[in-house]
Amino acid sequence: MSYFDAIPKIRFEGTGSDNPLAFHHYDPSKKLLGKTMAEHLRLAVCYWHTFVWPGSDVFGAGTFERPWQQAGDPMAQARLKADAAFDFFSRLGTPYYTFHDTDIAPEGNSLGEYQKNLAEMVDVLEAKQATTGMKLLWGTANVFSHPRYAAGAATNPQPDVFAYAATQVRNAMDATLRLGGANYVLWGGREGYDTLLNTDLKRERAQLGRFFQMVIEHKYKIGFDGLILIEPKPQEPTKHQYDYDTATVYGFLKEFGLENEVKTNLEANHATLAGHSFQHEVATSIALGVFGSIDANRGDPQNGWDTDQFPNSVEELTLVIYEILRAGGFTSGGFNFDTKVRRQSSDPADLFHGHIGAIDALALGLERAVKMIERDTLAELKARRYAGWDGTFGRKILDGGFSLASMADDAVLRNIHPNHRSGEQELLENIVNRYIYG
Amino acid sequence: MSYFDAIPKIRFEGTGSDNPLAFHHYDPSKKLLGKTMAEHLRLAVCYWHTFVWPGSDVFGAGTFERPWQQAGDPMAQARLKADAAFDFFSRLGTPYYTFHDTDIAPEGNSLGEYQKNLAEMVDVLEAKQATTGMKLLWGTANVFSHPRYAAGAATNPQPDVFAYAATQVRNAMDATLRLGGANYVLWGGREGYDTLLNTDLKRERAQLGRFFQMVIEHKYKIGFDGLILIEPKPQEPTKHQYDYDTATVYGFLKEFGLENEVKTNLEANHATLAGHSFQHEVATSIALGVFGSIDANRGDPQNGWDTDQFPNSVEELTLVIYEILRAGGFTSGGFNFDTKVRRQSSDPADLFHGHIGAIDALALGLERAVKMIERDTLAELKARRYAGWDGTFGRKILDGGFSLASMADDAVLRNIHPNHRSGEQELLENIVNRYIYG
Amino acid sequence: MSYFDAIPKIRFEGTGSDNPLAFHHYDPSKKLLGKTMAEHLRLAVCYWHTFVWPGSDVFGAGTFERPWQQAGDPMAQARLKADAAFDFFSRLGTPYYTFHDTDIAPEGNSLGEYQKNLAEMVDVLEAKQATTGMKLLWGTANVFSHPRYAAGAATNPQPDVFAYAATQVRNAMDATLRLGGANYVLWGGREGYDTLLNTDLKRERAQLGRFFQMVIEHKYKIGFDGLILIEPKPQEPTKHQYDYDTATVYGFLKEFGLENEVKTNLEANHATLAGHSFQHEVATSIALGVFGSIDANRGDPQNGWDTDQFPNSVEELTLVIYEILRAGGFTSGGFNFDTKVRRQSSDPADLFHGHIGAIDALALGLERAVKMIERDTLAELKARRYAGWDGTFGRKILDGGFSLASMADDAVLRNIHPNHRSGEQELLENIVNRYIYG
Amino acid sequence: MSYFDAIPKIRFEGTGSDNPLAFHHYDPSKKLLGKTMAEHLRLAVCYWHTFVWPGSDVFGAGTFERPWQQAGDPMAQARLKADAAFDFFSRLGTPYYTFHDTDIAPEGNSLGEYQKNLAEMVDVLEAKQATTGMKLLWGTANVFSHPRYAAGAATNPQPDVFAYAATQVRNAMDATLRLGGANYVLWGGREGYDTLLNTDLKRERAQLGRFFQMVIEHKYKIGFDGLILIEPKPQEPTKHQYDYDTATVYGFLKEFGLENEVKTNLEANHATLAGHSFQHEVATSIALGVFGSIDANRGDPQNGWDTDQFPNSVEELTLVIYEILRAGGFTSGGFNFDTKVRRQSSDPADLFHGHIGAIDALALGLERAVKMIERDTLAELKARRYAGWDGTFGRKILDGGFSLASMADDAVLRNIHPNHRSGEQELLENIVNRYIYG
Repeated sequence: MSYFDAIPKIRFEGTGSDNPLAFHHYDPSKKLLGKTMAEHLRLAVCYWHTFVWPGSDVFGAGTFERPWQQAGDPMAQARLKADAAFDFFSRLGTPYYTFHDTDIAPEGNSLGEYQKNLAEMVDVLEAKQATTGMKLLWGTANVFSHPRYAAGAATNPQPDVFAYAATQVRNAMDATLRLGGANYVLWGGREGYDTLLNTDLKRERAQLGRFFQMVIEHKYKIGFDGLILIEPKPQEPTKHQYDYDTATVYGFLKEFGLENEVKTNLEANHATLAGHSFQHEVATSIALGVFGSIDANRGDPQNGWDTDQFPNSVEELTLVIYEILRAGGFTSGGFNFDTKVRRQSSDPADLFHGHIGAIDALALGLERAVKMIERDTLAELKARRYAGWDGTFGRKILDGGFSLASMADDAVLRNIHPNHRSGEQELLENIVNRYIYG
Repeated sequence: MSYFDAIPKIRFEGTGSDNPLAFHHYDPSKKLLGKTMAEHLRLAVCYWHTFVWPGSDVFGAGTFERPWQQAGDPMAQARLKADAAFDFFSRLGTPYYTFHDTDIAPEGNSLGEYQKNLAEMVDVLEAKQATTGMKLLWGTANVFSHPRYAAGAATNPQPDVFAYAATQVRNAMDATLRLGGANYVLWGGREGYDTLLNTDLKRERAQLGRFFQMVIEHKYKIGFDGLILIEPKPQEPTKHQYDYDTATVYGFLKEFGLENEVKTNLEANHATLAGHSFQHEVATSIALGVFGSIDANRGDPQNGWDTDQFPNSVEELTLVIYEILRAGGFTSGGFNFDTKVRRQSSDPADLFHGHIGAIDALALGLERAVKMIERDTLAELKARRYAGWDGTFGRKILDGGFSLASMADDAVLRNIHPNHRSGEQELLENIVNRYIYG
Repeated sequence: MSYFDAIPKIRFEGTGSDNPLAFHHYDPSKKLLGKTMAEHLRLAVCYWHTFVWPGSDVFGAGTFERPWQQAGDPMAQARLKADAAFDFFSRLGTPYYTFHDTDIAPEGNSLGEYQKNLAEMVDVLEAKQATTGMKLLWGTANVFSHPRYAAGAATNPQPDVFAYAATQVRNAMDATLRLGGANYVLWGGREGYDTLLNTDLKRERAQLGRFFQMVIEHKYKIGFDGLILIEPKPQEPTKHQYDYDTATVYGFLKEFGLENEVKTNLEANHATLAGHSFQHEVATSIALGVFGSIDANRGDPQNGWDTDQFPNSVEELTLVIYEILRAGGFTSGGFNFDTKVRRQSSDPADLFHGHIGAIDALALGLERAVKMIERDTLAELKARRYAGWDGTFGRKILDGGFSLASMADDAVLRNIHPNHRSGEQELLENIVNRYIYG
Repeated sequence: MSYFDAIPKIRFEGTGSDNPLAFHHYDPSKKLLGKTMAEHLRLAVCYWHTFVWPGSDVFGAGTFERPWQQAGDPMAQARLKADAAFDFFSRLGTPYYTFHDTDIAPEGNSLGEYQKNLAEMVDVLEAKQATTGMKLLWGTANVFSHPRYAAGAATNPQPDVFAYAATQVRNAMDATLRLGGANYVLWGGREGYDTLLNTDLKRERAQLGRFFQMVIEHKYKIGFDGLILIEPKPQEPTKHQYDYDTATVYGFLKEFGLENEVKTNLEANHATLAGHSFQHEVATSIALGVFGSIDANRGDPQNGWDTDQFPNSVEELTLVIYEILRAGGFTSGGFNFDTKVRRQSSDPADLFHGHIGAIDALALGLERAVKMIERDTLAELKARRYAGWDGTFGRKILDGGFSLASMADDAVLRNIHPNHRSGEQELLENIVNRYIYG
């Protein structure tokens, strides 16, 4: 008997249906711009929040009581968890999943045990993938939860902790390759500082830079052809994280010569914690050539920590998907639900409600973004706004045809009087709302 | 008769004095670590907040009624303002000042008038510098207040606005050179966006990158040997500014090959608006090799806009100055008071109280930071904390002696079990407080 | 010739129309729940942002160049402004407007001139109301912009400033009565502090409390039967404002015995600056029995000041209108557009785009909120969730039937083991999205 | 052998000592304004953060490994914890401690077991108090950690959860009385909401109001003569907490007629999370007549969650203590260290460093605040600033001698022209810094 036995297979039933355990907008095989909805969105369910987290928070114990979270033999519980996870995936019908190494297998008491446990569970998952057709969007390593990582993994003051983390990442990358993962993600959970008083920024940057280089070298060595992704986050649990936001990550990659090797895995809630809109992080990442994948969730605009709620704003998602579609869509990335149900949402069905709502919101956003692309008024208006830069004078400037002095002399000679032209922001916002609401 | 006639020359009177119009801690000729306080701090008064701003805010009209802000012939008023400014500088006794081109001279109605007015006022200032011994810490150009810059200067959609801004910057750089300025500052007041809906991030970055390159080329052409400084700010008045913070500026400079040509002018209030501590921005800037100068002020921790208050936290300034001293101190930079008295502080004396308090706070911070350097417990404890990275194993890692796989194999073979060691944050905080409070 | 001559009368053209200068969703005469859209929404255009503000901000001069903002005879310009305003109202087709006393008439150089100017302009507006059918949603007094109010109006340390403000409020209330205004608003623009160091909180509260009492007494004396409304705002331009949020205002009213006399005028952007969602402030105000009216706008979630943008999130407005409808809808309140176009939006048409988009968003939200009310699943689920409190045991608790000890004894005796039940947040969010998106 | 055996008794050694395990400023018997430092500060160590919390956070497991946190018989471990706690108290030398019921005794599996365990441990603590001379500053009940409280305690949708919480509070109050506690604290850890969609604000307020009334009734019934204190907090773990801040709590108390029965326990970090300075919350609480006690800690100005760090800003504490001294000092309240060492601070000594630094910072702040009171320049300047309100005209206004109309007529007749006077904020800030730094 399964934990999710009361839940039917989730199907597309359209807007006419009143069934809360059905998709009302996500029709996986519906074609838009030559691709199906499923191909556009590349949806993934994550292991950690959905199967590992017990519903605890800083002020209280777990409320969930999932069978596989009870006391018992760790490997048996890991298998039970895998059964539940793949049962969940199958009922929900999303094509991808994601995991940390320690989500799927117990850490054990030594690196040897860790490797053995992980290898066994990779076999289990491989078999389950074969049976269910599920695919791995990306794997990653948890190098932040164990006490040894309290002061960071790659940026730890102790080289042996760096080595321990490297061992985990090596195993997690190899497991990802073996399971046909489309990407591999690096999240610097504790790569940052709690206080500058005990922190050598320059050293820690050098350590982190070398770590990333080793990851890239390993990628080529093992023939992994997916993307290596860094996930920016500004703070929490640290006071400050080195992967603050996309622009910071970009500078870091440039410093270590990695800007062509690494892309970003952007999370909505991390964007807002860093003081940016979700759309900003996506657009910036695209403009810098480092866009990779998305951790789809949302934060609470009034709370200053990572709430990892299910995304439900079609207004926000439409703009985000519009940016992605304009950039050509995902290559190997996708929308991963780095989301958790609220601690109060303790029923098995709540896990489905969370994902169904998010998936329908993405489908609604996708449909609207496709309309925006099909008749791309925003792009037309932008092209018109910057038209001067495509003219002779504009091109000459950008091509280095002027020095500051020659440009100033020319401006004085021409006695230029450029006037401000309206940016038409309100009109553009109305146009977007008409794409969304008709 | 001068506007500041009631104010005596401000002198160092020591802690015993009760006179509010005296320094109690700033003794300019006092020697610390081989330099005088004045040489360490390189204090500057700014023209804009102190002599140009009338005490207005978004919700109300000016409260100050300075004589030179009344209606009248613009050039006559500019001279009156310069008289008042240099009178103020002389009474306060700070060695440096700073300005925007349009602070010192009226813009006029054409580029020709602008150039003529500026040239005249540069003559005036040059004469005043000669008389008073005042020096220019840096000059800059205001390319954000006039309506033509509503959509940015270098990042404006209209190339002619770029050209207009270039003309101002050329003139401001030349004026800075002529006046013996130690640095030149670029602040991107409106180089950012109000909405992504009308913004082409990639284009605007390219425009801004080219603008910076032109500035550097001009610097060499005219033989200006001061630093070119960019001032990070995350937002306001724009929704998002391209020079968000030090890490963002660094990435930008790397993209356009300018990381060795441009340094940062860091402002405390901009740091906190970007979600960082002031110390963080200074330490990061130093770690990235782009530290240049400081706009000393403070924000209100509960208000989300640039309040530009006078710095008065010795606790904060001590740590900031410690970072700067450890990095060797200022070269051509200094502490510029980018600060304004509150709108309610409408008396001439208030301008002095603001500066006196800030200068004494910097002096107090400097004395404490010097003690921290003289017996640098923090540096010792840091060195001990990271000692492993100076050992054989640590150096081998950083020197590329391990691949991910060889490191993992080694770790498994050694069966490593690194344990967390205390970061001792509370002890370190106590040590700092004992430097501050004895 | 009118400033708005190029703009046609704005009409409802439905979703099929491509005309940006038309309503696509707001059909004023469409009936929902027995009232027309116009009757539900009671839309108002404000004088200050739309006709008084020149497009300036802290960092730059005005970009708008409206004819009535040019130099000239103040009363002539006030008449020109009134012509433009009523022309705008008529073309837009909203039934209400709002103003500060000094928006409509020049302050003059004495209280006598102020009263004379205001009286003259009230005559002008009265005539215009008669001609156009426009109505006044509320009037208010600007007791925060003039330098005399730099330290507050009612809370000023000088009693004469209190008296000056009282004179303005008396005149503004009388003008509001004369013009048939539906409400009168008090906004404490500078009733707060910049620093606690010079502030006596207890005194200032007493002053403000007495001021409010005087306003209520005057209301009865002149026979004004509209609501008196306080507008909460947490800060800006002050560091802290006494009307921080609804809960704070409620406590203040209770202290001075005014909780049955005064209601709130809630602004979306003020809610978010105070750390609350807009819906929270509306729901709290209703729960406390002090809901009155709305200043409809939005802030920028990433910027920490009052941006007063046009509301455009149907997702947010739906929930807000749902709360209002459930509470019975507006009595004399309405949706006032306390909104300004962006400084870059300098064309006359931009003023229309801003309002049209906001009105359509409100119409969309209204339609969805009506659906939510017609089959009120949320209310049903809430009733079920709290059902225990309608049972014998719950009622006994609330009716005072238990002491702490008797309740504890009873609980131990019954050996209760209450288990948590799911809060179903994700399901409820999905239900709301299906009301919005079908 | 004790966990803290390596730690000597902490003694006052003065500023000359280099010993980090000594007080450098806190001299408990030093007299200031007629009271000893110990009597002024009334310092307390909390059980929860210091002895219960294992060093875990949302992203990682505990790092501390205290002996009493290991697996074992719960009552035996509770005794071991009490041994360690009182050993710590004795070595540190603070006179007070604080606890939640479930900090000191295991919850057990039924209310019966809970009562039995608690009673046993109260006996243990009573004996330890007698031996050591330690006193209880306040007790409280943990009605937020157990899953049954996921949707609140008093505000839970299920009356039986209310009853369960009432049982715990009754027992905790009785235990507090028995142990001679000076106060009893109510903290509404989950009295708030995660989403308005499932929340009936009016009902929940009524439940909470009745709960508070029952607590007050019980206080009188059992003859407890300490203060009942509510601790405001704006959010976390809930999205919104009903005890948002002092002003909100005040309104709540007024609604339920409890404003003379309940005071506030103010926490620095909760103040800043609510958008206020710590000083603001203290000053507001005093102005409203509801000041009671302090949870001394600090937040991180850049992080949006409750970091509960040890207070170390003498600059901040000086102003807070100044407000408290001016209001007459603590009655039964005190400074409780609701503080936790950082997760990285895993050594036993770190617990001492945290407390020692905080205590010295309070002592430094107390000394400076005493100087501020002894010659109270701020109070003098405030009195002068508001002097007009003590004159005939000011008193007449506050005494109700004017109507709005009579005041306006008088103002027009007198043709008043009040001018703004400087608020002198910078001068006042300098005065404060001279109290702090001499």
